[in-house]
Amino acid sequence: MLPITRPTLLLDETKCKTNIQRMCQKASRLGVKLVPHMKTPQSAEIAGWCEQEGVEAITVSSIKMAAYFAKAGWKDITVAFPVNVLEIAEINQMLQDGVDLKLFVVDAEVVQRLDAMVSSPVNLLIELDAGYNRTGIDADDLQAVKTVAKSIAEARHVKLYGLYCHPGNTYQTHSIEEVRQIWSTAIKKANFVRNALSQDFEDIKVRIGDTPGCTLVEDMTGVDEISAGNFIFYDLVMNYLNVCDESDIAVAMACPVVAKNTVRGEITIHGGGVHFSKDHLFDDSEQKFFGEVVILEEEGWSPIIPGIRLTSLSQEHGTLKVSEGLFDQIQIGDVLGILPIHSCLTANLMKSYTILDGKQVSHMEAG
Amino acid sequence: MLPITRPTLLLDETKCKTNIQRMCQKASRLGVKLVPHMKTPQSAEIAGWCEQEGVEAITVSSIKMAAYFAKAGWKDITVAFPVNVLEIAEINQMLQDGVDLKLFVVDAEVVQRLDAMVSSPVNLLIELDAGYNRTGIDADDLQAVKTVAKSIAEARHVKLYGLYCHPGNTYQTHSIEEVRQIWSTAIKKANFVRNALSQDFEDIKVRIGDTPGCTLVEDMTGVDEISAGNFIFYDLVMNYLNVCDESDIAVAMACPVVAKNTVRGEITIHGGGVHFSKDHLFDDSEQKFFGEVVILEEEGWSPIIPGIRLTSLSQEHGTLKVSEGLFDQIQIGDVLGILPIHSCLTANLMKSYTILDGKQVSHMEAG
Repeated sequence: MLPITRPTLLLDETKCKTNIQRMCQKASRLGVKLVPHMKTPQSAEIAGWCEQEGVEAITVSSIKMAAYFAKAGWKDITVAFPVNVLEIAEINQMLQDGVDLKLFVVDAEVVQRLDAMVSSPVNLLIELDAGYNRTGIDADDLQAVKTVAKSIAEARHVKLYGLYCHPGNTYQTHSIEEVRQIWSTAIKKANFVRNALSQDFEDIKVRIGDTPGCTLVEDMTGVDEISAGNFIFYDLVMNYLNVCDESDIAVAMACPVVAKNTVRGEITIHGGGVHFSKDHLFDDSEQKFFGEVVILEEEGWSPIIPGIRLTSLSQEHGTLKVSEGLFDQIQIGDVLGILPIHSCLTANLMKSYTILDGKQVSHMEAG
Repeated sequence: MLPITRPTLLLDETKCKTNIQRMCQKASRLGVKLVPHMKTPQSAEIAGWCEQEGVEAITVSSIKMAAYFAKAGWKDITVAFPVNVLEIAEINQMLQDGVDLKLFVVDAEVVQRLDAMVSSPVNLLIELDAGYNRTGIDADDLQAVKTVAKSIAEARHVKLYGLYCHPGNTYQTHSIEEVRQIWSTAIKKANFVRNALSQDFEDIKVRIGDTPGCTLVEDMTGVDEISAGNFIFYDLVMNYLNVCDESDIAVAMACPVVAKNTVRGEITIHGGGVHFSKDHLFDDSEQKFFGEVVILEEEGWSPIIPGIRLTSLSQEHGTLKVSEGLFDQIQIGDVLGILPIHSCLTANLMKSYTILDGKQVSHMEAG
């Protein structure tokens, strides 16, 4: 066993590489290009594992993250966030460094401002909203899409690369069928827009992304590119949505047990909101919980242990509610494994990965 | 105005120093020693502002944080977390470096293990639980307290410094009176324990901590030391509990506006779960929200603007629900100020502070 003394994010390299490989093979089988989202691992090393499986282009969630991956040698980077023209200096720096930066736009005036400010030609994706209602132009509002498209057509330095849709509403579903239905709608809407714009633009790509859809959808007719990130690790949210098996989850927190309360049947671990994030799920009795417990083993970790759950978090404390039978089996000084609710936020907080042989895997925020 | 281009945590140095000064003056007036909790700012520079007001000892929430402040020159550091003997190497290193480390214990066996492993004498505080039900020995269970105290009395290298109680249930209150009632109970219980142990130990300190109590309680008879951290910045939770005025909140996130949705009356900012944390409050209609909006000004920021709130967060996106009158006044490219729900977690995520003249203030996790 690794000599773990404080909250540590463990990464099962084999599971992670299998997740990457499986998604790459699926993309290849369905004839779509996978542009994986690095907001989950935020790691040049893990992006390298994707490259080994044939990935040529990546997605990131901020200009700062784009700059990190550009520095690591990536040349085709999509920033999946409405472009913020205040960051023009960093954008121009990457363009000058030869990065094929792909930016999201949702507003004609921003297109004009960007066009006036970029130092080299840049590819744009118009973000469409097919029902998630976060960002993107309502895909049914053809007039609004055309206004933005027109501003791109009239621009000198920016060009239309494609249409992007993140159907994040798949996170609110209860069945595989619902996920597929949401994708089917998104694909239809995006292709309707593509057709409407095809008089003025050639070869508009349709890119769709989110882990539930990329994992579960088999009919990708009308899709050119897919983009998802969470699948690289998966997590309990994905397991509860039946998107992945719990054995696919590639990260687990290792947390020392520091106190036991016999009266309440509670165990305190070092592992709180600054390690896990406050994202949670609800159990069958509508009780919030923040993680499931596994036993750490030489070669990884056990399946989820029933009768014990992470039920409350403060900044550094985690409280586990433990069934009577288990309580006596866990001692102060033990190190428990906890599968995270939301691996993206946990990884963002932990800023480093320890693989099972004890080696560290890089993270962009590593101190 | 500062040239802000991406999510930035602004720190109003004057407000922060006033918060520190006010708490120091209160402690001095009431004859208690303030041992401020650095889990909120996690900054050697801000700890220095406390030192300028006469603070000699600090509290931290982990051994890692203790090591950071020890390196910054602090010699009297309490780790307000049940001691984790797996971290004995770091503990011994600090003891060897001459740090007067004060550790929390709740278990007799841990006391024995610690005693066998420490390289130099170390001070312990027994953590008592007076009703918060997170960690600590039930203050009413005198037998349990005495068991731990006995293990300290019989030990060779560890000694009893005091009793600590964090009445975190003050965060669940609805009135100043309730906060004071919780403290009154905690003080009574801690002193009952102190009296019971006084035959075997001399000069047992009673330390109590949490920002609502330290701010609102005026009768500290029976208390020797107080410990709180959030008061250094305060935040919306504290404002909603009427612990502070909104004008006392010393930190605000600056977030660029990147998109507007006229149909839904929503504005998207760059500022999400990786910046704010997912902590939230509920408005009068039981709707979750993640921050309140202020106008950034040359000398700080305005009072909270009514009619606009941060209502949803994903990893990097923040969505503001905006009233009709305000919607047209906010443009893409503007930078809005957002007061955080929970300043401790926001500061932990942002890992740096920008004061109003543009200078950076250190944070232990700064890259």
